[in-house]
Amino acid sequence: MTPHTETPSATTQSVAPMLSVRKGAAAVEFYKAAFAAKEVFRIEAPDGAVVSRLSIDTSEFWVADESPEYQNFSPESLGGATTRMVLTVPDPDAVFARAVSAGARAVSPVSDKEYGWRVGRVADPFGHHWEIGRPLE
Amino acid sequence: MTPHTETPSATTQSVAPMLSVRKGAAAVEFYKAAFAAKEVFRIEAPDGAVVSRLSIDTSEFWVADESPEYQNFSPESLGGATTRMVLTVPDPDAVFARAVSAGARAVSPVSDKEYGWRVGRVADPFGHHWEIGRPLE
Repeated sequence: MTPHTETPSATTQSVAPMLSVRKGAAAVEFYKAAFAAKEVFRIEAPDGAVVSRLSIDTSEFWVADESPEYQNFSPESLGGATTRMVLTVPDPDAVFARAVSAGARAVSPVSDKEYGWRVGRVADPFGHHWEIGRPLE
Repeated sequence: MTPHTETPSATTQSVAPMLSVRKGAAAVEFYKAAFAAKEVFRIEAPDGAVVSRLSIDTSEFWVADESPEYQNFSPESLGGATTRMVLTVPDPDAVFARAVSAGARAVSPVSDKEYGWRVGRVADPFGHHWEIGRPLE
């Protein structure tokens, strides 16, 4: 399949998270608006469910409509998330503000942490949490 | 902090998942044994809780003991996972077998899928699910 041509070659390995959500198509639009993610590839089912592969620079993640019958649960279904996303950016304050403008909920404001990062945390409209930060100088 | 020297420079962005688990230290050992992950960095709290950064080739992910008071839930606490991990490897059959030997539970055997991948799925002992596959020729 053409969309897979970017996949690492047979000699390399990679790992990427696939976020389960309700309203997958809307989630993709949110991640594009909030985090400047680019959609690399999408499968869309007749019922509108999507599987989408997104990139942020050289990192990739996937977004898919939940399918509880296959043990793929959205945070809305379980009442929380079991993985959070660590987003490293040059300007966490700006990205945090953009995410909130796009519809995310501020969980912790951006601040300098004792472990050497400047980080803030948001919950996106689909229940996944993002830590947006960069290492301190 | 020295361990952060591998972090992308101020001009790049990256995103990596952080898996919440019970028994973080044991989870790190499992991911090393099952998927040949390498630990890049670890913070360990006095009570034994860990935050660990792991790499698989050039991809990174994090593992941390859950902290429900901060909305970081393990799959064991919620009864399922909201993100699954897509692990692309040259030989999915071999990695699937190694994961099961290391203690993972087979969810779906490795097989050729109509969407152009050869993939199998396991649940790790901490409740996170991994799709282990490669694109078909």
